[in-house]
Amino acid sequence: MNLAASMDPKRLAVSAADLNLKLMRWRTLPSLDINILSSVKCLLLGAGTLGCQVARMLMAWGIRRITLLDSGRVAMSNPVRQSLYTFEDCLDGGELKAVAAAKSLKRIFPAVEAESINLAIPMPGHPVPAQEADNVLKDCELLQSLIASHDVVFLLTDTRESRWLPTLICANENKVAITAALGFDSYLVMRHGSGPRPVSSDMLDATCNASDKTGDVNAIVTQMHKLSTKNEDRGQRLGCYFCSDVVAPIDSTSNRTLDQQCTVTRPGLAPIASSLAVELLVGILHHPKGINAPGEISSSIVGSSDRPLGILPHQIRGSLPQFSQLTLLGYSSKSCTACSDAVVSEFRRKGMEFVLQAINQPSYLEDLTGLTELMESVNSFRVDWDEDDSDANADD
Amino acid sequence: MNLAASMDPKRLAVSAADLNLKLMRWRTLPSLDINILSSVKCLLLGAGTLGCQVARMLMAWGIRRITLLDSGRVAMSNPVRQSLYTFEDCLDGGELKAVAAAKSLKRIFPAVEAESINLAIPMPGHPVPAQEADNVLKDCELLQSLIASHDVVFLLTDTRESRWLPTLICANENKVAITAALGFDSYLVMRHGSGPRPVSSDMLDATCNASDKTGDVNAIVTQMHKLSTKNEDRGQRLGCYFCSDVVAPIDSTSNRTLDQQCTVTRPGLAPIASSLAVELLVGILHHPKGINAPGEISSSIVGSSDRPLGILPHQIRGSLPQFSQLTLLGYSSKSCTACSDAVVSEFRRKGMEFVLQAINQPSYLEDLTGLTELMESVNSFRVDWDEDDSDANADD
Repeated sequence: MNLAASMDPKRLAVSAADLNLKLMRWRTLPSLDINILSSVKCLLLGAGTLGCQVARMLMAWGIRRITLLDSGRVAMSNPVRQSLYTFEDCLDGGELKAVAAAKSLKRIFPAVEAESINLAIPMPGHPVPAQEADNVLKDCELLQSLIASHDVVFLLTDTRESRWLPTLICANENKVAITAALGFDSYLVMRHGSGPRPVSSDMLDATCNASDKTGDVNAIVTQMHKLSTKNEDRGQRLGCYFCSDVVAPIDSTSNRTLDQQCTVTRPGLAPIASSLAVELLVGILHHPKGINAPGEISSSIVGSSDRPLGILPHQIRGSLPQFSQLTLLGYSSKSCTACSDAVVSEFRRKGMEFVLQAINQPSYLEDLTGLTELMESVNSFRVDWDEDDSDANADD
Repeated sequence: MNLAASMDPKRLAVSAADLNLKLMRWRTLPSLDINILSSVKCLLLGAGTLGCQVARMLMAWGIRRITLLDSGRVAMSNPVRQSLYTFEDCLDGGELKAVAAAKSLKRIFPAVEAESINLAIPMPGHPVPAQEADNVLKDCELLQSLIASHDVVFLLTDTRESRWLPTLICANENKVAITAALGFDSYLVMRHGSGPRPVSSDMLDATCNASDKTGDVNAIVTQMHKLSTKNEDRGQRLGCYFCSDVVAPIDSTSNRTLDQQCTVTRPGLAPIASSLAVELLVGILHHPKGINAPGEISSSIVGSSDRPLGILPHQIRGSLPQFSQLTLLGYSSKSCTACSDAVVSEFRRKGMEFVLQAINQPSYLEDLTGLTELMESVNSFRVDWDEDDSDANADD
């Protein structure tokens, strides 16, 4: 008789951590797919207030394969808000955030497969000097290979422009992407829609049909593919974080004072947005259409046995001053600077050279997607909103 | 020139932790009262999923004086969901939760004044054998003295009945009490209303008027008193957690199987409810009427300079299946088994003997508050809901 399993504390920790999920499946959610949860590979872009809490929520849902990416070090002001760091991480100049976060996850749960990547995401509006171009291209390629080797990408950085390249790569690779973003007292959580043209879907569909059963590793791999490749009824694609923008992302920090560069938010926001982001992922993982699941904004299905987790919204927006929360739905834009066909096609044709050009010159993205033309046509209008007022103040 | 302040990492940590709040005050919330935040004393009943996250949120808001009360030890299944514990806390039978939580808070922020109390809260429906009576009375008295020496009490335990005694004591002492409670996929966050008859309000009002300025310790103490004693326009009291019940709290765990005793909830709930509970506290601390602030459910005041934090609801209820959140308002009940005048008066008259009787015999609370009579009058009705059905199945 082998008692090792009951004696080794690390093994005990694994079975204890599963206990919550098994109880959940037994009592309330028979359809809970613990295999897909423990197999899905998540890439977290940003290991700050949102990244730390998202990683914790993933572990609480039984998700074990977590890669954290960040380029910063743990600062003295971080531990009280960034839930994976302690005072000790701040000493001697501060540990690298991604490294400290992965260590912290292992201290919480030794069986987690946590990796750390120290990388700054290249951003439009932050031009790259010629002598830096090779390094930035390597960073772009590393980011692309990381996204390719994960099933899900969380966008948890603190600027708009740092979300652009990951959004584009996710659209190209047709990966599940989830954004969480904070204002001073409001939050946005959004799952990005699929990319405009999935890669090699025929090949993957063939794989799906060949081994469509649960329980073994192949079947789980197949399920991961399904997440992003069921295209028979894609219909109108859901939008990404940039779909409602009419300008390309640009540098939002350089011309701001130090205090404006700091992320000043009410502390309650990050745990709420992080929790909702992970609940949204669990919904996608359990939806038969995965990334192509239609966006829902309200429903009469609650309590129905075929949708035990509830609705699967596209966006959730919340406000602390009103203690309110809304679900919203937005479709992809033909002029999107990150996920439109024009942008993804050009990225496929020119590769990272395209990315470098877009980074150095955001108007290039606006030209490519027709936003420049749109803005010109808007500017060519002249509307007198109120004739009386206009007359009173006119000097022409 | 004294460089100690800039060289000592612990002092650096204090000023860095304040930086977020100072930026917040400077940029968006000039009325943010950092003094009251750093002075308010919070008692957290329960150091589980909710207690850990509430403690973290308090620290993120600059609240430094935190006492954690729990009677359990850290179990192997806890660290992935209870954000102050690590695998190491589970070894050798598990550290006491309150102790491990306080240590963890100090590892995050060395300047926190964190205390731990290892105590099981006496509960109605869990009868006390005669030989245990003295110990239970001591526990009741310890709980009472803890509540008396804190400004705010968070009710974060996992059974209904463990919230009864703290609710009663808070009503008697007129302390700010905030409840967070989780279902499988829904949450409730509620601030309890004031008690039925404040203690010695004349004396405290006198204190308030004598030193009503900010900046010194006396003024802060005064503000704390104001939190619970401004009574000039109390109007209708807000309800407590028990105000809408029509039965006394009873033992909800003994007759359940092991799996039913475990708290099975979707992991996203606890961080959301904890964050909302602390945001609610910050709202109370900044409201001129403190505990007597009327409950709001929606408002046009957003953006108004006199209410920069937004509305102050009485209850917030949320549902993950619908990703929805509502604010609700409920007034105190004359028949409440925890905060009504009948119960608080009897508690004042008989002291802990009353508590012991209520614990051993919940029907005593129902007799006292008129619930027994109410139930009898309801049962005396006989309604035939559907005459046809009734006729078809009748054998009388």
